[in-house]
Amino acid sequence: MGIANMSSASSRRRTPVFAYEGLDRVIHERARLGVLTSLAAHPKGLSFGDLKLLCGLTDGNLSRHLRVLERERLIAIAKDQRQRRPQTICRITAIGRRRYVEYLAVLERVLLDATAAVRPEAAASRARAPLPSI
Amino acid sequence: MGIANMSSASSRRRTPVFAYEGLDRVIHERARLGVLTSLAAHPKGLSFGDLKLLCGLTDGNLSRHLRVLERERLIAIAKDQRQRRPQTICRITAIGRRRYVEYLAVLERVLLDATAAVRPEAAASRARAPLPSI
Repeated sequence: MGIANMSSASSRRRTPVFAYEGLDRVIHERARLGVLTSLAAHPKGLSFGDLKLLCGLTDGNLSRHLRVLERERLIAIAKDQRQRRPQTICRITAIGRRRYVEYLAVLERVLLDATAAVRPEAAASRARAPLPSI
Repeated sequence: MGIANMSSASSRRRTPVFAYEGLDRVIHERARLGVLTSLAAHPKGLSFGDLKLLCGLTDGNLSRHLRVLERERLIAIAKDQRQRRPQTICRITAIGRRRYVEYLAVLERVLLDATAAVRPEAAASRARAPLPSI
């Protein structure tokens, strides 16, 4: 919903159009958003070490966020025993990918609302040429 | 930076491309993102009551988030004495608008990375027709 249409209609002020309840807090948290984006980009999985470097996180922080994501079944963590030194490999699950894509749709709406808020003409041109849907 | 270019180059795995440090935590928090988007869309300000309804927040929650935003000088809170019953009016400040716009630029990059991660072809077409810059 565009802001431009709404701000002048006082009756529509009464609806929580900026509540963004679909911004799943499990995914929205900055570090976890980085972790999930890394894993979505690497469907075969990433080692703990690679994730740590890609996301710029410490061991402790990454561990904590991985536990949250695993508890929610958004990722699966396994030991890859093929190496001489077994590696921890993290993968995004099917549930994780679905929730991530749902989250992205809301994030896109936030960005459209936000663009309309700061620069109405940009939002209008964006609305004329919609983004490829995810 | 696109994911497609990066994932095959192991040397670039070493840089924290998914750290998203520009995702300012003060703004990124879901409720505050809603509050700031509301205020960016209403430069003349919004009453506490309107904000509460627009963002779907309770009195306590909204108060808490407004204090955080005011402490960071992203918003200004004033009493409008013109009414018979003085209203609390919240406005986004110049600093707030600048930091919000900076945040949006990072958010846009996250969305491009994320789209590339879940659907590389959508990201490619998006890159060919860039979004209007904010």
